[in-house]
Amino acid sequence: MALTIRCRHYTRNFESPRYLLPNTYIILRLDGRSFTRFTASHNFQKPNDPRALNLMNASATETLKAIPEIPIAYGISDEFSFLLPRECSLFDRREEKLVSTVVSTFTGWYVLLWSRYFTGEGGNLRSPPSFDCRAVCYPSVGNVRDYFAWRQVDAHVNNLYNTAFWALVNRGEVGRREAEAELRGTFAADKNELLFSRFGINYNNEPEMYRKGSVVYRDYRIPEDEDAAATATQEQKERAQETKETTAVPKVKSKRQIEKETKHARRARIVTEYVDIIGDEFWVKRPWLLGSEN
Amino acid sequence: MALTIRCRHYTRNFESPRYLLPNTYIILRLDGRSFTRFTASHNFQKPNDPRALNLMNASATETLKAIPEIPIAYGISDEFSFLLPRECSLFDRREEKLVSTVVSTFTGWYVLLWSRYFTGEGGNLRSPPSFDCRAVCYPSVGNVRDYFAWRQVDAHVNNLYNTAFWALVNRGEVGRREAEAELRGTFAADKNELLFSRFGINYNNEPEMYRKGSVVYRDYRIPEDEDAAATATQEQKERAQETKETTAVPKVKSKRQIEKETKHARRARIVTEYVDIIGDEFWVKRPWLLGSEN
Amino acid sequence: MALTIRCRHYTRNFESPRYLLPNTYIILRLDGRSFTRFTASHNFQKPNDPRALNLMNASATETLKAIPEIPIAYGISDEFSFLLPRECSLFDRREEKLVSTVVSTFTGWYVLLWSRYFTGEGGNLRSPPSFDCRAVCYPSVGNVRDYFAWRQVDAHVNNLYNTAFWALVNRGEVGRREAEAELRGTFAADKNELLFSRFGINYNNEPEMYRKGSVVYRDYRIPEDEDAAATATQEQKERAQETKETTAVPKVKSKRQIEKETKHARRARIVTEYVDIIGDEFWVKRPWLLGSEN
Amino acid sequence: MALTIRCRHYTRNFESPRYLLPNTYIILRLDGRSFTRFTASHNFQKPNDPRALNLMNASATETLKAIPEIPIAYGISDEFSFLLPRECSLFDRREEKLVSTVVSTFTGWYVLLWSRYFTGEGGNLRSPPSFDCRAVCYPSVGNVRDYFAWRQVDAHVNNLYNTAFWALVNRGEVGRREAEAELRGTFAADKNELLFSRFGINYNNEPEMYRKGSVVYRDYRIPEDEDAAATATQEQKERAQETKETTAVPKVKSKRQIEKETKHARRARIVTEYVDIIGDEFWVKRPWLLGSEN
Repeated sequence: MALTIRCRHYTRNFESPRYLLPNTYIILRLDGRSFTRFTASHNFQKPNDPRALNLMNASATETLKAIPEIPIAYGISDEFSFLLPRECSLFDRREEKLVSTVVSTFTGWYVLLWSRYFTGEGGNLRSPPSFDCRAVCYPSVGNVRDYFAWRQVDAHVNNLYNTAFWALVNRGEVGRREAEAELRGTFAADKNELLFSRFGINYNNEPEMYRKGSVVYRDYRIPEDEDAAATATQEQKERAQETKETTAVPKVKSKRQIEKETKHARRARIVTEYVDIIGDEFWVKRPWLLGSEN
Repeated sequence: MALTIRCRHYTRNFESPRYLLPNTYIILRLDGRSFTRFTASHNFQKPNDPRALNLMNASATETLKAIPEIPIAYGISDEFSFLLPRECSLFDRREEKLVSTVVSTFTGWYVLLWSRYFTGEGGNLRSPPSFDCRAVCYPSVGNVRDYFAWRQVDAHVNNLYNTAFWALVNRGEVGRREAEAELRGTFAADKNELLFSRFGINYNNEPEMYRKGSVVYRDYRIPEDEDAAATATQEQKERAQETKETTAVPKVKSKRQIEKETKHARRARIVTEYVDIIGDEFWVKRPWLLGSEN
Repeated sequence: MALTIRCRHYTRNFESPRYLLPNTYIILRLDGRSFTRFTASHNFQKPNDPRALNLMNASATETLKAIPEIPIAYGISDEFSFLLPRECSLFDRREEKLVSTVVSTFTGWYVLLWSRYFTGEGGNLRSPPSFDCRAVCYPSVGNVRDYFAWRQVDAHVNNLYNTAFWALVNRGEVGRREAEAELRGTFAADKNELLFSRFGINYNNEPEMYRKGSVVYRDYRIPEDEDAAATATQEQKERAQETKETTAVPKVKSKRQIEKETKHARRARIVTEYVDIIGDEFWVKRPWLLGSEN
Repeated sequence: MALTIRCRHYTRNFESPRYLLPNTYIILRLDGRSFTRFTASHNFQKPNDPRALNLMNASATETLKAIPEIPIAYGISDEFSFLLPRECSLFDRREEKLVSTVVSTFTGWYVLLWSRYFTGEGGNLRSPPSFDCRAVCYPSVGNVRDYFAWRQVDAHVNNLYNTAFWALVNRGEVGRREAEAELRGTFAADKNELLFSRFGINYNNEPEMYRKGSVVYRDYRIPEDEDAAATATQEQKERAQETKETTAVPKVKSKRQIEKETKHARRARIVTEYVDIIGDEFWVKRPWLLGSEN
C-alpha cells in the first residue's frame, strides 16, 4: 500500500488544472459535433427544424436550472453559449470542470428530452449527438456585449443564407451545387429580393426564433407587471451601485449571502425569448444579467 | 457587416486553446457529479449495482466506437479513464475539444442506453446524470502503467471497504455511523475477516467486475484462437520495432495509412474484461495498447 | 536536410506559448534571487542602502526607456513591478517573451550601472545578482490600483519593521534573535514608539524613498508648468473618452498612429518620485497612466 | 490593515503559475533581442566575433555554476539552450521562475564579463544586450537528441551561409544586396565551392567553434584519464540501470542524497567543446547527461 500512496502522489502530480482569470466573465460555448451527419440521419427539416431548436432551448433551460450561477444563455442552430458572471467561483473557476459539467449536463438533457420533441414514427434517437465545448474569458462588459452581438449577427447571416439556399433546393428544385453557385457573392438585399420575388417569402415574416436565435435567461421581474422590473431588481441595482463605489475587491460574501442568492436564482423564472441582444435595450432592462459594470 | 468582421476577429482573439504536449499519453478521466444524490434518487443497489456498472461499460464501449483513437478504457464505480496514444493528433490535441467530446459522447450514450439496463417499474431516468472530465498527460509507458495501477488499487480498496460497510448496514442492521466507526482504522485483512466471520462472505468470491473494475479495450486478436495474437499483432509489433530503432521523430504517416489504421481500429472487437492490469501480463499480451515503448 | 526540416517542424511543435488574455493590464514583477546572500557579500547598508535603491531605480528607468509600452513601474527593496496597458500588444502578449525581456533588460542595466553607484574601495561587483520575474493579468483599473496599494502597504510594513530591527541591532547592540523576539507581535504604533523613545528616531522623518518606495513613470506634463498637465494630456483624455463612448472593441490603430504614440512615449520625461499611490490623487492627476477606464 | 490582508489575498489570486509537466526534459533557450543593432553598435566582427562567442560561452559556464541542476548547454551565435533533466524539481518546475532566473543569470554575467573579452579602445559596453527566453518540454531522450541535432544543423547551415555572405561582402567587395542575390537558392556544395574558388577558403578548416557551436557541460570524468570515464560514471550507470528495471516512479531521493548530488555537480569540471552532438558518440560517452533512458 505504501507503493500505492507514493504512486497516487506521483501520478496526481501530472494533473495541471487551469484556473480561469478572476474578475472576468466566462462564456462556455458548446457546439454540435458532426451535426451534418446527425441531422441527416434523424431527418431534420431544413433550413430550420423547430423540434430541434425547441429541444436545444429546453436543454439549455435545464442546464440553467442545474447550474444556478448562469444568468443567461444564447443559442443558434446547434450551438449554445452560457455566461458566467465575473465574480463566479464555481469549481474555483477550473476550466475543465466548467467545460465538462456544462456540456455533460446539456447533452444528458438533450437525449432525455428528445422523445418529447421528436414524436411519431421515425422519431427515435438512434445514436446520441455529442457536443464540444470551450471556455473563453472576457474582461469587460463591452467584450461580453460584443460577443453576444457577434453570435447574433452570425445567426442572422447564416439563417438568411440557409433560408435562401433551401428555398432554392426545396422549392426551386435546384441542385445544391447550383444553389450554392447562385448565392455566391450575393448581399443580404439580394437574398431578400430572391426570396420575395421567386418564392413570395418575406424574410422579415420568418419566425423570430429562426432569425434572432434563442435567449434563455433568469427573469427576476414579476411576471404580471413587467414595469415593476425596476422594483424587483432594486436589490441587484443597489448591490451593483455599492460595488461600483468602492474598490474592485469584491465584497467577501458570507456563506449565508451566497446561499440566499443561489436560492433566489433557483426561484427565478427561466424564460426563452427571441429578441435583439445587439442593442442596449435588452440589457438595460435586465441589469442583473451583466452585473455592476453595466 | 464591417463591424461584424472586426468584432469577430477581436472577439475570437480572447480564445486561448491549450494544446497538450506532443509525444505524451493522454488520459481523459470522467467522474460522476453529485452521484450520491443521483444514485439515491434512482435506487441504486449498494454497494454495487450491476445494472449501473454494465451501463457504464456499455457507454464506454460506445465511446470507443465513436472515437477510434482510444485503445483502452478503465472504469470503476462512476468514473472511467480513456487512454489516447502518445502519437494521437485528434483535434490537434486541443484539451477542451478532447475533454468535452469524450464526456459528451459518454453522457449521451449513458442516457440513451439507460432503459436497456434499468427496466421494470421505477426504472425511469428522472433526470440525467452529469460527469466532469479532465485530461492528464503522461510522458512514459511507466507513468501510464502507474496510472492504471493506481486506479485499480483504488477500486480494490474502495470496494472492500464498501462491501464491508454495506454488509454491516444491510445485513448486520447496524447504523451507517456505527458501521463507519467499526471500520475506521482496519486493515484489508480485518475487513476480509469481518466479512467472512460475520456474514459468511468470502471476498475473493465476489464478482470480478466489483473487485477489479472493468477494462474495455480493442482486441485485435482473432477470437477463436487467442494464441494467434502474436500473429494478429505482428503488424503492430513490427511498427513498434521500427520506431524504436530509429529516431523519436514519428514516421509521418500518409493520409492513406491513417485511414487504414482507423478502419482497422473500427473493425476490431471491443471487449470488456475484469482482469488485473497492475501486473505485466495483461499489457505484454496486448502490445498494441501502449505502443512502441512497451 | 530533409531530415532537418522534418526535425525542425516536429521539434518546434513542442513549444506551447501562452498568450496573456487581451484587454487586461499586465504587471511584470521582478524580485531579487537569494538577495540576503548577495547584499551580505556586497556589504549593503542596513536597513536601506541608498546606493542600491538608486541603482534599482536607474535600472527601472532604463527599462522604461528600452520598452516604451511601459507607462509606470514601482519598486521597493529588491523588487520592481512594471505595468503594461490593457491594449498592449507587445510580443503579441506572449508571456515568456514579456517576462524574459523585462528581467533581462533590467539585469543588464543593473550590472552595467553598478559602478556608478557603488564607488570607492570594496565597491566591486563580484558576481551579478539575478532576478526572477512573473506576469500577472488584472482585468480592471480597480484591480491594478489594488495591486499597487498592496505593494506600497507592504513597503511600509516591511520598512517600519526593518528600521526598528536594525536600530536595535546596530544601535541598541542587541543580537538579531533578541531583536526579532522583541518585535514579535508589536503593532505599528509600538514600533514608532520604540524608535522614538529608544533611538530618537521620528519614523516620519525617514527618507520618503525608504518609506514609500519608488514610482518611476513617464511624465507627459510640461515640466515648468505642472498645471498645464490637463492641456498636455488633452489628447490622451479625448482618446479615453472616445473609447468609453463606443464599444469595447479597441480602435484599430494605424501603423502610423502606433509609431506616433511610441515616439511620443520615447520623448516623455521619465521621472522618479517617492509618493503615495494608494489614494486617488496620484492617478487622477496623471490620467494617461491607467488609460480610459480611470 | 484588514483591508491589506484582503487585498493581498484577492490580488495574489490573479497569479496563475504554470508548472511544467513532470518527467519531461526541459530546455530553456535564450536568444539575443535586436542583436543586429547591438552587434553593429559594438562593432562585432562578421561573420563571427570570437570575443563575443567566448563571452557567450563564459556566461553559459557561469550559469551552469549558478544552477547545478543543468548538465549541459549548447550555444550558437547569440542563442544558448540549457537542458534540465526529466526529474528536475527546481522551483517546482514553475515556468516563469525557470525562464527568468536563467535569462537573468546569463545576462548578468554577460555584462559583468564583457570587459574581459572586449578589451582595448572602443571596447566599452555602451548599453547592455537583452535576451528573451522560452521553456520547452520534451518527453523522451529521442526528442532531446532531435532538439540538439536541430540546433546544430541550424548552426551549420547559418554559418556556412554567413561565411559565404561576408566573404563576398568583406573580401569580394560586393554589396549586401548583391551578395544575398548571389547566394539565393544555392546548395551547401555551391557555397563550399564559392568559398574555395573565389576566396581560397576551405570551409572545413574554419574554426570548429564557428562550424559546430559550443557545447558546455559538466564533465564527471577524471581529466588525466579519459578512458576512466566508465569508472567515474559507474555510479550514474548503476543508478540509471536501477531506475530502468523498476517502475517509472522516480526513487524518492532523500534530502541527503540530493545534497550529495548537488555537491557532486558543483565539483564537476565544466568544459566547453566544439564537437558533433548529432551522432550517438558524444552522448554514449557521457551517459550522465541524459540519464536513465539513454
